[in-house]
Amino acid sequence: MNYPNGMKRKHVVTSSNESFSNRGMSLEEDINLTNAYYLERNIAIIHKKPTPVQIVNVNYPRRSAAVITEAYFQQASTTDYNGLYKHKHIDFEAKQTKNKTSFPLANFHEHQVHHMESIVKHGGICFIIIRFTRYRETYLLPATYLIDFWYAQHNGGRKSIPYNEIKKNGQLIPFKYQARVDYLEVVEMLYF
Amino acid sequence: MNYPNGMKRKHVVTSSNESFSNRGMSLEEDINLTNAYYLERNIAIIHKKPTPVQIVNVNYPRRSAAVITEAYFQQASTTDYNGLYKHKHIDFEAKQTKNKTSFPLANFHEHQVHHMESIVKHGGICFIIIRFTRYRETYLLPATYLIDFWYAQHNGGRKSIPYNEIKKNGQLIPFKYQARVDYLEVVEMLYF
Repeated sequence: MNYPNGMKRKHVVTSSNESFSNRGMSLEEDINLTNAYYLERNIAIIHKKPTPVQIVNVNYPRRSAAVITEAYFQQASTTDYNGLYKHKHIDFEAKQTKNKTSFPLANFHEHQVHHMESIVKHGGICFIIIRFTRYRETYLLPATYLIDFWYAQHNGGRKSIPYNEIKKNGQLIPFKYQARVDYLEVVEMLYF
Repeated sequence: MNYPNGMKRKHVVTSSNESFSNRGMSLEEDINLTNAYYLERNIAIIHKKPTPVQIVNVNYPRRSAAVITEAYFQQASTTDYNGLYKHKHIDFEAKQTKNKTSFPLANFHEHQVHHMESIVKHGGICFIIIRFTRYRETYLLPATYLIDFWYAQHNGGRKSIPYNEIKKNGQLIPFKYQARVDYLEVVEMLYF
């Protein structure tokens, strides 16, 4: 199993009170496991980008052990996940909500939405993965829907995407034992 | 100008003793400026991935200002740069050397070479950008050459790629004022 970002490994430990099979893991953890599965089986090469951090101070107590002693979180200018599947560029963002009736647009940054627009224009496959934790449902919604809702909100539109719209325009992602969030099954159906 | 990683901005300041026009900037800085130019002109969407960092301790003195007080550098499991150009997935690593006669393979990790192999197999455009700082020459070398040299070294082959091989099998990247390392000109020639 490949964890490019050490934070994830830590997270596994802290959530160890939940059984592996009870769907209690975070969406991010589920997607990381799914991507590791895709990678192992040579199905696709999709990685989560590291959390962007501005490093201000580093101590070198020994040559081999640099310790970062002061750093700050930065806002991501792109989506969190990208990669390659069947010659196609894949790009997506994943978010979960406890809301029952809608998904708040505040979960995304302006930068990310512009990035997704560009990806679509340049011929990439771009979408968002949204989990409604209360329903234990995870949807794939093509980025174009998010972009439409995003711009509509500035013209007096809603500040969130209604659950029913996501159910109608998105695709429920199957939950499986190994590919826990098997989003490529939906990608295959929608884009190939 | 877009600096997704704050470290870059800092680097610009520390290298301010060198004139912008004398090619004295680091390869990484040149590529970041080139990518920003590609992005602004809507030519391609290519970003450097943030440096992977394992975060161990975070202080929250105020709600809005989290300070990371203990973190460690992690080894990247992929290449540093990827993105999308004309419907194609682009993936590359960039390194510079002060050597005059060859480029040491130790500049790459096993993980990165395996990653590049996968990208090629799945239909992505994959290459390395190598700068010989003493000659002020920057080359684009298709990943397949690096992969061949990488495996050859385990069978008694060289531990570095000779400068002459890079000159023969790679393409010199033109230096320009705005797209300082205009590697997409070479990509266009080799892959389209």
